[in-house]
Amino acid sequence: MKKYCFGIDVGGTTVKCGLFNVKGDVLDKWEIPTRTENNGINILPDVADTIDAKIREKDIDKDEIVGVGLGVPGPVDESGAVHGAVNLHWGYIQLEDQMTRLLGLPVKAGNDANVAALGEMWKGGGAGCHNVVMVTLGTGVGGGIINNGQIVTGTHGAGGEIGHIHVTDSLTDPCNCGNTGCLEQVTSATGITFLAKRKLASDVRPSMLREGEVSAKTVFDAVKEGDELACAVAEEFGRYLGTALANVAGVTDPEIFVIGGGVSKAGPILLDYIKKYYQQYAFAACKSTAFALAELGNDAGIYGAAKLVL
Amino acid sequence: MKKYCFGIDVGGTTVKCGLFNVKGDVLDKWEIPTRTENNGINILPDVADTIDAKIREKDIDKDEIVGVGLGVPGPVDESGAVHGAVNLHWGYIQLEDQMTRLLGLPVKAGNDANVAALGEMWKGGGAGCHNVVMVTLGTGVGGGIINNGQIVTGTHGAGGEIGHIHVTDSLTDPCNCGNTGCLEQVTSATGITFLAKRKLASDVRPSMLREGEVSAKTVFDAVKEGDELACAVAEEFGRYLGTALANVAGVTDPEIFVIGGGVSKAGPILLDYIKKYYQQYAFAACKSTAFALAELGNDAGIYGAAKLVL
Repeated sequence: MKKYCFGIDVGGTTVKCGLFNVKGDVLDKWEIPTRTENNGINILPDVADTIDAKIREKDIDKDEIVGVGLGVPGPVDESGAVHGAVNLHWGYIQLEDQMTRLLGLPVKAGNDANVAALGEMWKGGGAGCHNVVMVTLGTGVGGGIINNGQIVTGTHGAGGEIGHIHVTDSLTDPCNCGNTGCLEQVTSATGITFLAKRKLASDVRPSMLREGEVSAKTVFDAVKEGDELACAVAEEFGRYLGTALANVAGVTDPEIFVIGGGVSKAGPILLDYIKKYYQQYAFAACKSTAFALAELGNDAGIYGAAKLVL
Repeated sequence: MKKYCFGIDVGGTTVKCGLFNVKGDVLDKWEIPTRTENNGINILPDVADTIDAKIREKDIDKDEIVGVGLGVPGPVDESGAVHGAVNLHWGYIQLEDQMTRLLGLPVKAGNDANVAALGEMWKGGGAGCHNVVMVTLGTGVGGGIINNGQIVTGTHGAGGEIGHIHVTDSLTDPCNCGNTGCLEQVTSATGITFLAKRKLASDVRPSMLREGEVSAKTVFDAVKEGDELACAVAEEFGRYLGTALANVAGVTDPEIFVIGGGVSKAGPILLDYIKKYYQQYAFAACKSTAFALAELGNDAGIYGAAKLVL
């Protein structure tokens, strides 16, 4: 009888691993380092070794394992191949095939942002929903879209690349993607810092932000203190993200938006700024769509990876 | 053995009907008037009657029929119910259930724009593709999104409501949807006329458009004659639509965009203006996504409706 599965989240620094039962309870959680040298040739064997070691440690029969889900930081196509993952130093890799050969178990792989969205839908901020858009506000802006319980991968693995929606013609510096005026440039942690510094330079009002380091965290800390200039930055952030998500709603019309990543630690006040502009610009039928903060933090990836095979 | 199905496209003026074989060849095509009086109470019985009459006329056994697909101008939820269809004077109707009872055949219903997208994917401009975004540029701007061969209906039936993506803060008049700055306001036939009239008022250059009636058709006719002012209007149209579709690509990453509706009669030159801005703003992986003109014209709806049950 099938009792277990593994959810593996391969990051640029560490590989997060989880052993789950088929109900989705995490039974064990651990990490191994990601060895990216030599074009990341050791990463998959290392993952296979740590899974094999865990199977022996827990005295699990391989017949009891449903399979292994893998989230990786790159686009994964329908055949389970990765077309380059910069942070892992990978080129083209037939990921699912290689892991299946290494482990002798069924393997299913997905892009890490999409897989995290699946995790939040299953056990986190979007639990109980089947149509979820997850937005991760970190160094960049990641996105994952779940429609009818399935990841929207897209033709080129670019489904849910919400961070690169064009939102403004007012920027001159290019985004990491090469385009100019992307959502990521104004709503990631880096983007919020940029908005704050630009505001500080153009606005003469006094502000807590004029002392010490400016970051997404200090901006929202100042917002909570009622700092007028910080609030103006939060409005600008909310207008960009709320309008972009209204436009996403006009495409896939989700039940819920789940907001995660480091910036989401600012808490519910973050959602207030987003929802204000979302509700202004969303199509009538979508104006009441729910917003929630992500709940699984760094574990979203292992939960979503496990869900891939269940 | 199942040999036939019906594809029905219920519009505000006429109901378009098609009898198909299971390969998708249309065997017969006809129309009946849409009787919208008395809250459209006669529409479904009229459709059932015309199907029953066709079954008798062709001497078809009901056991040979796979089912009946229906496209309607309103949102259809997962249970097959319609939550209001203004052009049919309908409120809430349990569409699939009612039609099944009237006909004694399996019935599947969908929103007309989504169903037309399915038709173009199956037998039209998107043939051979499984991830298609269709945009219909008519009096308004309709949209339909097919992901992995399935319509993206959305939670509130608003999946693919591309016409109401917010594209500009520069408008003051509201869209029919109640919001301001929607794609529909600047890229529908009406929207192109608006852009042209605004340009004529603010630009002193001579133009063919200064004589006679201004419409989407006369604008693109003038573009083909090299009329500078008309070309400037087409650029503006292309920038709004190309940027919006680049943003759609960042959400669902389709294989192909299919452009239909009356405005698409302008031909391939229309796609050139859209692609110029699409390629500027699309995420790198999506820059080479194909564009095609719709091929089925007014028949897209009956083809897509038939595909719903096949």
